[in-house]
Amino acid sequence: MTDLLNEMLPAIEAELQKQVARLDVPRTRVYHDMLTYHMGWTGDGAGPDATGKRIRPLMLLLTAAACGKPDWQTALPAAAAVELVHNFSLVHDDIQDKSEKRRGRTTVWIKWGMPQAINAGDGLFVVANLAMTDLASSYPAETVVDAMRILQNTCLDLTRGQFLDISYEKRADLGVEDYWPMIGGKTAALLSGCNELGALLGGADQSTREAYRAYGQYLGLAFQVQDDILGIWGDESVTGKSAASDLLEGKNTLPVLAGLGKKGRFAARWAQGPIQPSEVADLAGLLASEGAYAYTHDTARQMTDMATNSLREADPQGEAGQLLMDLTDRLLKRDS
Amino acid sequence: MTDLLNEMLPAIEAELQKQVARLDVPRTRVYHDMLTYHMGWTGDGAGPDATGKRIRPLMLLLTAAACGKPDWQTALPAAAAVELVHNFSLVHDDIQDKSEKRRGRTTVWIKWGMPQAINAGDGLFVVANLAMTDLASSYPAETVVDAMRILQNTCLDLTRGQFLDISYEKRADLGVEDYWPMIGGKTAALLSGCNELGALLGGADQSTREAYRAYGQYLGLAFQVQDDILGIWGDESVTGKSAASDLLEGKNTLPVLAGLGKKGRFAARWAQGPIQPSEVADLAGLLASEGAYAYTHDTARQMTDMATNSLREADPQGEAGQLLMDLTDRLLKRDS
Repeated sequence: MTDLLNEMLPAIEAELQKQVARLDVPRTRVYHDMLTYHMGWTGDGAGPDATGKRIRPLMLLLTAAACGKPDWQTALPAAAAVELVHNFSLVHDDIQDKSEKRRGRTTVWIKWGMPQAINAGDGLFVVANLAMTDLASSYPAETVVDAMRILQNTCLDLTRGQFLDISYEKRADLGVEDYWPMIGGKTAALLSGCNELGALLGGADQSTREAYRAYGQYLGLAFQVQDDILGIWGDESVTGKSAASDLLEGKNTLPVLAGLGKKGRFAARWAQGPIQPSEVADLAGLLASEGAYAYTHDTARQMTDMATNSLREADPQGEAGQLLMDLTDRLLKRDS
Repeated sequence: MTDLLNEMLPAIEAELQKQVARLDVPRTRVYHDMLTYHMGWTGDGAGPDATGKRIRPLMLLLTAAACGKPDWQTALPAAAAVELVHNFSLVHDDIQDKSEKRRGRTTVWIKWGMPQAINAGDGLFVVANLAMTDLASSYPAETVVDAMRILQNTCLDLTRGQFLDISYEKRADLGVEDYWPMIGGKTAALLSGCNELGALLGGADQSTREAYRAYGQYLGLAFQVQDDILGIWGDESVTGKSAASDLLEGKNTLPVLAGLGKKGRFAARWAQGPIQPSEVADLAGLLASEGAYAYTHDTARQMTDMATNSLREADPQGEAGQLLMDLTDRLLKRDS
């Protein structure tokens, strides 16, 4: 890892802990425990595997630095805020999906019950908002208000995407055109918000901010489309999760929506109800033979090209700029 | 109703609708429907009974006007924000408590399911935060950041109170000292935040802001303690809900906690498990005979005095000031 990443990652973790510590007071210590557990710092399985990769705050700080801001530390409260928003959405998502595991660990709602888990998610969101107000010690108040507006619009998109995702579960008439608004909200909005916030706090001009925003948007879409491919045709030994598991879970991913649009044998089987483990391999093959693999692969490539073009337009500078380009390559060329 | 209230109440409703309309776009229309239903504007039973009394935004605007700000309209986005925060907490509260009715109508989670209801609550919170950023068109950015900090600290208190409330359900060792931090968060914090925001946006100096903040805090506590009395010894024909229903529901209200502290016959019965409808009248009498009614009544009076003293110290001006005093009297001398 480079020197800059070696500085940024521990700084992000320290800022996150400082923000969450707002709840570390005697009467609400168990509440604080729920949050530190979910963030990966305490409890069974705590450690680097449990925290996640902190991609979003890293994106924000690298963007700020790549806009020519050497003291990226001033943007740390915003970096913490985006990661806290991400985690607030994960805590609620796990309840909504009835997921029992997150990053290999028991989820908050299983451990402390649904009512406390809803409240824990709410608390993470509040702490994110409070973190944003801390920007006022380093930035003009106008910039802080602009930053808040960006973050909250991002959150509105997140909840819109979540609404669509949940509402799609009961629908049998979905097409590829239903995919983008959902994924745009669920995956791309927050990444795009990270880059826009980083550019704002890095002092970039309006057109550079716009280029970074677009970069984050396309990067998020490309990443999700790739994830959809891996979820059906990924190499289990590389991804670490059972390939084709998305078919078993009945997820409305892009390959599935493309397959449904063909109204062929795949669509006929999908309409008949849950897929069984024994059918998965054949069905993944059938879906590919009907053109869904090629379609999704082309789409991923298109989105990747648009992301790298936007990043080139943003013209990131210095070591941070190089890291941003490397990170993009790593995210988009991954096989796991 | 006075001219000022006749102006403020429709202005609050219009601002709320404008803020919620951020979600009124084609793909997420059903999401928007959930919010307008909960706010009392649409669906079965829509109308004034379904919206609630909008006490919190009214408090905020009256305070701003009573601080000598004739154009209270500029504070409308903050007034909408506090009401949206209140409603976000109600939507989540109904899920956490498994409540099937709210203001006589089916709750959001019963109508649209738990996952969508969690998301609807999240959406109301996001819209509240976005409303706050609209203050920037009338106030200096420094004031907007201060306002955000007040609102978010209020929200942190809200989630803390909620944590305590949920965690108390499983505890048998509670005393009156456990009451204040819970109620301070659940009821008083937001009211106090409304008054502090109103004073800030009304241009009050620091000591006046502090007096309004304290007023809201004591008013909230006094109101809740009164509500606790009505929930056990209220006149059913006046309150509209079954008296002593708080005993049936096993709520940890102040009279109950005071009764438990006596370690007498009430405490012994309470420890044995849920109260049956046939015991309620006798048990309410027993609780009173052990001193809990007198204790709670004295406490309500104390808090009421502290609220009116703080309000006098804040020295509210003009028609708004008079209305604020009238509203305080009405809230604290109610029998329903």
